[in-house]
Amino acid sequence: MLSKNKLKLIQSLNHKKGREKENCFLAEGDKIVTEALKSNFHVDYLIATSEFIDSHSLLCSPPSNTIEVTKKEIQTASLLQSPQNVIAVIHLPEKSFSVSSLNNQFTLALDSIQDPGNLGTIIRIADWFGIRHILCSEDTVDCFSPKVIQASMGAIFRVKVHFTDMESTMKKIKELKIPVFGTFLDGNNIFKESLPSTGILVMGNEGNGISEKISHYIDKRITIPSFGKSGTESLNVGTATAICCAEFKRRTII
Amino acid sequence: MLSKNKLKLIQSLNHKKGREKENCFLAEGDKIVTEALKSNFHVDYLIATSEFIDSHSLLCSPPSNTIEVTKKEIQTASLLQSPQNVIAVIHLPEKSFSVSSLNNQFTLALDSIQDPGNLGTIIRIADWFGIRHILCSEDTVDCFSPKVIQASMGAIFRVKVHFTDMESTMKKIKELKIPVFGTFLDGNNIFKESLPSTGILVMGNEGNGISEKISHYIDKRITIPSFGKSGTESLNVGTATAICCAEFKRRTII
Repeated sequence: MLSKNKLKLIQSLNHKKGREKENCFLAEGDKIVTEALKSNFHVDYLIATSEFIDSHSLLCSPPSNTIEVTKKEIQTASLLQSPQNVIAVIHLPEKSFSVSSLNNQFTLALDSIQDPGNLGTIIRIADWFGIRHILCSEDTVDCFSPKVIQASMGAIFRVKVHFTDMESTMKKIKELKIPVFGTFLDGNNIFKESLPSTGILVMGNEGNGISEKISHYIDKRITIPSFGKSGTESLNVGTATAICCAEFKRRTII
Repeated sequence: MLSKNKLKLIQSLNHKKGREKENCFLAEGDKIVTEALKSNFHVDYLIATSEFIDSHSLLCSPPSNTIEVTKKEIQTASLLQSPQNVIAVIHLPEKSFSVSSLNNQFTLALDSIQDPGNLGTIIRIADWFGIRHILCSEDTVDCFSPKVIQASMGAIFRVKVHFTDMESTMKKIKELKIPVFGTFLDGNNIFKESLPSTGILVMGNEGNGISEKISHYIDKRITIPSFGKSGTESLNVGTATAICCAEFKRRTII
């Protein structure tokens, strides 16, 4: 049974303050929780229906402190419109990040992304394209918010997301001579640019793009050209990230 | 002032049944309604605050039957979490579609897309890449649902979306010898395929991909390869559409 205290704790994890206090976050749903159990993350406990427990006992052992609950109890605790059979309470990962780990790979840097759905989508894209690290400015939406976890479809358990002071990180990146790309409406046509296989790609805020203080660190400004007399002024940042990552990675296989 | 009858009518337009009965749909928010006013769509009337009316009277004349309301009245009628200053009631466009209009261009076909956010995103992508027509199977989510309009960011007023019986449309497309591409998890690497500048690209349902009955009409099965040992099983259909459209269109400029 789900105690009132546990329910309260779960609800507190919907907010960043609660997550920081408890040093935990939530993941919901059969697919995403299964991804968490397969990952290096420490799953503190599961709240699961007998259906989930039975179907998963052979796939991967659930943590010993699994609380069996009814579907109705899951519904009370869940944030989802269509609650599934399991909610996991998971430890926040240790914060450890050194800029030198970005050498010799392709990395995304996000400057103040605000929409949790966009951040989750970007983490999922990064995972698809084999990108191991995402840097986020401190004012980017928290990657452990339930909506981000949901939109990432479990990719959050594989891609490392680091929140850092973006300016000082950019300074160190320049010292290491890692090339820095950024998307701007008036940048060079990405399809005609020469693109390296390693470096940093900065994507900017939904409304305002890349901030002025970060734009100083960008070596090459790129853009996705529009075709025809489109009236659309910009692409969604998730869409733009997908197209840019595909273009950088495509070059590595031809 | 907003009468009870008008409020009731507006609320009925949130549902497909209501839209079909009234032959109208809703668009909300300053940016999207401005796009509607600039388009060929027939805006029946606006429900707007004085703020909207004042700021837009010079840009484009609002229809004569604009109802001035308070911000609070907009909030009562609005579906948005942060209501803006205007709601438009717009006539549904005439249904007219002939397969021969797809000759000599690049067109998207959607087989049972269910999520309104995904459909809206795809319409926005189509607009960016100069794609003029989108074909939808009859079981695709309605393109005039408020969430689709919102996610399209106004692109719905420029891209023509046609709901047709997909199988009979595909038959006619084959008779015209228009090449048909489709995305499958086991398709050929899109980045290594030869791609024409015109044709049809079919994108499938979020969970199940392209249905068997439509897959028979596909000449070339393509896929977006994943990079590294990603655990992500698939990309979101909006993301995949963006990458595919970019790749087809990129080839036309190199």
